[in-house]
Amino acid sequence: MAKVTFRFEEGEPVVTYATEGERLLEVAQKSNVPIDAPCSGNASCGKCRVRLVSGELDSKITRHISEEEYQNGWRLACVSTVKGDVEVEVPDIASAYRSRMKVADLSSPSEIAIFEDTKKKITDAGLELKNSMQVITISMEEPTLDDTMPDNERVTWAVQAATGLERVRIPYSVLKKMPDVLRESHFQAQCVVRVTANDVFLYDMLPMEAKAVVGGLVVDIGTTTVSALIVDMLSGEILAKASSGNGQIRYGADVINRIIESQKPGGHERLQNAIIKETLNPMISNMCRAAKISSQQIYRAAIAGNTTMEHLMMGINADPLRMEPYIPAFFKTNSLFASDVNLAIHPDAHIILAPNIGSYVGGDITAGALVSMIWNRPEMSLFIDLGTNGELAFGNSDFMVSCACSAGPAFEGGDISCGMRATDGAIEKCTIDPETMEPSYHVIGDEG
Amino acid sequence: MAKVTFRFEEGEPVVTYATEGERLLEVAQKSNVPIDAPCSGNASCGKCRVRLVSGELDSKITRHISEEEYQNGWRLACVSTVKGDVEVEVPDIASAYRSRMKVADLSSPSEIAIFEDTKKKITDAGLELKNSMQVITISMEEPTLDDTMPDNERVTWAVQAATGLERVRIPYSVLKKMPDVLRESHFQAQCVVRVTANDVFLYDMLPMEAKAVVGGLVVDIGTTTVSALIVDMLSGEILAKASSGNGQIRYGADVINRIIESQKPGGHERLQNAIIKETLNPMISNMCRAAKISSQQIYRAAIAGNTTMEHLMMGINADPLRMEPYIPAFFKTNSLFASDVNLAIHPDAHIILAPNIGSYVGGDITAGALVSMIWNRPEMSLFIDLGTNGELAFGNSDFMVSCACSAGPAFEGGDISCGMRATDGAIEKCTIDPETMEPSYHVIGDEG
Repeated sequence: MAKVTFRFEEGEPVVTYATEGERLLEVAQKSNVPIDAPCSGNASCGKCRVRLVSGELDSKITRHISEEEYQNGWRLACVSTVKGDVEVEVPDIASAYRSRMKVADLSSPSEIAIFEDTKKKITDAGLELKNSMQVITISMEEPTLDDTMPDNERVTWAVQAATGLERVRIPYSVLKKMPDVLRESHFQAQCVVRVTANDVFLYDMLPMEAKAVVGGLVVDIGTTTVSALIVDMLSGEILAKASSGNGQIRYGADVINRIIESQKPGGHERLQNAIIKETLNPMISNMCRAAKISSQQIYRAAIAGNTTMEHLMMGINADPLRMEPYIPAFFKTNSLFASDVNLAIHPDAHIILAPNIGSYVGGDITAGALVSMIWNRPEMSLFIDLGTNGELAFGNSDFMVSCACSAGPAFEGGDISCGMRATDGAIEKCTIDPETMEPSYHVIGDEG
Repeated sequence: MAKVTFRFEEGEPVVTYATEGERLLEVAQKSNVPIDAPCSGNASCGKCRVRLVSGELDSKITRHISEEEYQNGWRLACVSTVKGDVEVEVPDIASAYRSRMKVADLSSPSEIAIFEDTKKKITDAGLELKNSMQVITISMEEPTLDDTMPDNERVTWAVQAATGLERVRIPYSVLKKMPDVLRESHFQAQCVVRVTANDVFLYDMLPMEAKAVVGGLVVDIGTTTVSALIVDMLSGEILAKASSGNGQIRYGADVINRIIESQKPGGHERLQNAIIKETLNPMISNMCRAAKISSQQIYRAAIAGNTTMEHLMMGINADPLRMEPYIPAFFKTNSLFASDVNLAIHPDAHIILAPNIGSYVGGDITAGALVSMIWNRPEMSLFIDLGTNGELAFGNSDFMVSCACSAGPAFEGGDISCGMRATDGAIEKCTIDPETMEPSYHVIGDEG
């Protein structure tokens, strides 16, 4: 085994071990060292540059590294293999995509106005914004030697009385905490319930003095960026928000490269962990801290993403999506729960996936087309989602057509020499002064 | 920290570390070193004898250790605390309860005859032995560029056609394997389904050449001994059997001591792990190997135990059972699944608990009273379950009463000097020759 040391401009180095002949980029990925590789390590984008500090690498010469740069130690991690103990420096720019990706600030007044405006338009169009969750308070007789009814029957009776429904379902998660909650509150309790025509599902039971919040998680899984909110499902209020790079980035920039990665041994689990454990769960944890609620108080999740992202998030084989005739395992499913995919919210929380309508037109587009209201207008509209994977939906209240194509890499440098991701160094704004005709631009990372 | 070494008559020693003043019995329990302590470490049974080999222990003198034995190094682990590095020998007899407990051999012709006889009596009494599980074969058109329906919709259509039912539920566990199974069998598959009046639940999907078995797990959790079977739920045939000591034994011999242990920090988890992870899951694994099926092919479990065992198995606070007015969290529940308690069978397998009818008359008694058919006879019968916790049920087809009391410890030496568990050294049979009046006995562990 060879000792491989990754140094950074800031922070502690990472030391790991690799077998001779292993590709440096893969060694980095395994050790959770972020090195940007939008082309997935095909030596075509030139983004995975590292500098050899000591030791030796077996590196191919590519057009991305000049003779002088090579002399100064610059190598592409994707075409360098380990020959023995080696120490490399990962420049800030190669890892910045991970931590400093520029994302929308959902708390700005203009963003909030968009939310409020959209909500109003949806309601005006006759769609009711409601759900089946409620908080009810129940009160029971305390048990005695003459009244030894078990806790769950006592609770069932009380919930039946409070809701008028016969069938009360109490899952294990609630049964487990029931004896303690009841005795803490002298057989009074707050219950978070889902009430439908047929039955009551008891999601949670809290002591009287606890703050009952019916949290809902909303997530948009982009190929590159993930955004999320926690909302109060009773008031509709936004309780917390978060954005983050998609942890799968290090396994490829676009959906095709992600699917290819998923086909390697352990690939499905690796990609599922990258989005659930490394991206969503930390975001949820941060948001819950900000909202001052427990992650167990999130009782439902709505997740939108393109078809591939939804498959990879569930650890479901997406290879048939990539190969003719391009068949997904699902467009939609009604049977997905948080505990199925280890999403760190209430284990019985239903995960509602925005339905996909095609192998490359996913739930993010159906969700976007819905709230943009283009289906409710007589005039033609074009809905554009210009992400790493770009989609268009065109139509009006009579019809709609859609299509999709890889879009981001054209700007992000997947296979061209001058593009890059929206991180430090990328131009984010260009203006031409109408008076003086003086052009100016703003670069991400610059002050002001 | 002091280094504590446990030596055994056979096998590798166990080395662990303890703080000064820690009780040796607890150090052993933490390190998974089996030392029998039916009285839970109250110095009353004298069973936890160990021999000091080197180092020092701070030990109380008790009536169980003679002066000579003390000189030879014998100590009770429950009244010995660690003073520094120490090495003790655990005699075979102190740990034998774990591995060599004598249990019924369910494969003997007489045992099998009991099963068959019971089945017949139940059927004769008008109870139908049936369930809602089936294996169906479905066959679908392979997708093409002109027929790009997602896998799960294709399967739903096929299952609807095969069963005539509209509502088909496909859980995550099946959706996850679906793309691979369908493509392995050219869009033919065997489906394990539960068919009820309202819907079809798809438990499993297997390639055509696989052996579809609808396995059912049957478990009796005794306070001391656990017995289990795997049955073929379609034919009723017994596929495998297993018996084992209950892994909770080291935390106390009877239900009261187990509940007390569960109230210590981390106690619920420890006791739940002892029965699920350390006892049931290894038994399931062994039985599946014998039956040549995957543990994922067990789609339902029926578990009986006394009220405390059922609570502790589920990690549910059983302390209210112990304290006046002795209230259980549940007598029965319809919402327990294998994944809730990490039972290593199909995650969506329903766990059907034999219903408890009292805080100390549990599901094992209702199950026993049911199959003994005493409820179907005009004459009075007495049903006796003489386990560690003993129960009686008395009655006929008109009425039934029951009661319970700690029974086993009277024989097993919980608080008396001459009893012991049914392991090596215990008398298991006594005969008096009718001719010669010569008494003879047989001891467990002796040949012949």
